[in-house]
Amino acid sequence: MIIDRLIEKITTLRNPSVVGLDPQLSFIPEHILNEMYDTYGHTQKAVAKSFLRFNTEIVDAICDIVPAVKPQIAMYELFGAEGVSAYIETIAYAKAKGMFVIADAKRGDIASTGAAYAKAFLGKTEIGSACEDVFGANFLTVNPYLGEDSIGPFIDECKTHNKGIFILVKTSNPGSGMLQDIYSDGKPIYEIVGSLVAHWGTELQGKYGFSPIGAVVGATHKEQAKRLREVMPHTFMLVPGYGAQGGTAEDISVCFSTEGLGAIVNSSRGIIAAYRDKCRPQEHAQAARQAAMEMRDDIVKYI
Amino acid sequence: MIIDRLIEKITTLRNPSVVGLDPQLSFIPEHILNEMYDTYGHTQKAVAKSFLRFNTEIVDAICDIVPAVKPQIAMYELFGAEGVSAYIETIAYAKAKGMFVIADAKRGDIASTGAAYAKAFLGKTEIGSACEDVFGANFLTVNPYLGEDSIGPFIDECKTHNKGIFILVKTSNPGSGMLQDIYSDGKPIYEIVGSLVAHWGTELQGKYGFSPIGAVVGATHKEQAKRLREVMPHTFMLVPGYGAQGGTAEDISVCFSTEGLGAIVNSSRGIIAAYRDKCRPQEHAQAARQAAMEMRDDIVKYI
Repeated sequence: MIIDRLIEKITTLRNPSVVGLDPQLSFIPEHILNEMYDTYGHTQKAVAKSFLRFNTEIVDAICDIVPAVKPQIAMYELFGAEGVSAYIETIAYAKAKGMFVIADAKRGDIASTGAAYAKAFLGKTEIGSACEDVFGANFLTVNPYLGEDSIGPFIDECKTHNKGIFILVKTSNPGSGMLQDIYSDGKPIYEIVGSLVAHWGTELQGKYGFSPIGAVVGATHKEQAKRLREVMPHTFMLVPGYGAQGGTAEDISVCFSTEGLGAIVNSSRGIIAAYRDKCRPQEHAQAARQAAMEMRDDIVKYI
Repeated sequence: MIIDRLIEKITTLRNPSVVGLDPQLSFIPEHILNEMYDTYGHTQKAVAKSFLRFNTEIVDAICDIVPAVKPQIAMYELFGAEGVSAYIETIAYAKAKGMFVIADAKRGDIASTGAAYAKAFLGKTEIGSACEDVFGANFLTVNPYLGEDSIGPFIDECKTHNKGIFILVKTSNPGSGMLQDIYSDGKPIYEIVGSLVAHWGTELQGKYGFSPIGAVVGATHKEQAKRLREVMPHTFMLVPGYGAQGGTAEDISVCFSTEGLGAIVNSSRGIIAAYRDKCRPQEHAQAARQAAMEMRDDIVKYI
């Protein structure tokens, strides 16, 4: 089961972290951008090719020490179909280098449409006599606002194709409480959603006691994360918000089980933009590797 | 303001409806699909080109009687970057034919990432000396689960570029109640979100009394829609769920103001797949036109 394989990789590397491949134009070293501008002009294709080069150099530099990457699709959609193409190629490259890929797209829609998203990111697309992975991610982030019948198609693809999802439960942004912290019968919405996620994952528990029907739990809300670990003892957590967003290693320690399992912590700009103010742009990937090692060492101290 | 222009177009055409351009492979007439398979093989490109042909034929057939189209991006992402390219071309084609375009993508993410989605779909992307619309939609559907700071970037683009959004309030699917119908202090979540949407739209009210910060309210939940019209008297509603999903013209009449304004009703497969079992596949676009006229006449009877 995919979640067992992820846990094994985390254990082997002694590194429960994931690097967010969320490139922005301002993160791309000038020598890469200028090469692509020279070749393709000031076009979406030039940026897409720059993102892909930037990502592959980072993946090359971290794939032996970091178990997974989490590309956030918004950054790529900003550059249209060319951007989406670079997104898909990034996923393929990271997988070829042995990394797990969490597609951060926060999709969710009513049943028939939700099924199209689920097939696109996790399943297969049939075209005449052909049948292919389109995005080919191992995991996908999913938004629960539309309800259980919008989650079902994603769980179906997890079962059929040995994939996983992370359902938004308590997000890392300061305004997450607007809806997620509303109380009903003494329980906040995030806890109600958390209980549902735990319930949906029950039948899929792997050999280490965790399910591939996971949850997003922000590192920036320690007390809520602690409560969610109790409510969802067998739910694997994707934990954004470490580093640039303010979550500390101590904060996120509550997301792990007593055996030090059950969570993977994301950092994006803290890793991929680490080179800025530190070293030459040509050394951006080595700076990302260095930052990834520091993050790993920081987190494992507390679990 | 965009919402005033949409209302004027609805009034001129006497048609408060929108056609959902949500193609599925099974909807595409064989003669179109075979031509593209012959040219491009069983590839994502062949399907993308088929979708585009299918859509443009429908747009040609309805653009003088229907004010807007709502392409649902999941159906296109299922065919990768080629699908997204067809999505973008569909938007451009419909706009060139004078139609308003509601991009149905249900996006939403924390601030910096939400801003990338907002710029991609509604704003502009800067690339070196170039600055361009990428998706170029007039409106976008947005998911509120992440909270107010995830909605802000979309509202910013609405203000800067004269665009609009429809925030998911009460969706049309049977399972929408899981989260949306949870009660807190005597009010369901959908009403709490509805009040927030109304609040966010206050400062942007147009000359007909409606705001471009709109709401998605499913046609399949009549009592909830009625209540939401009271809670959000100045919020323009996008109403999915008519037809194939079970919502009737009488059900959705509660979404309109006493002047017959304030809502636009979507039908997707009921229009674009109307030709099946009815006429030759070559006449699919004429069948769509016929179905669109029947929908229009059905709805206006009740408002």
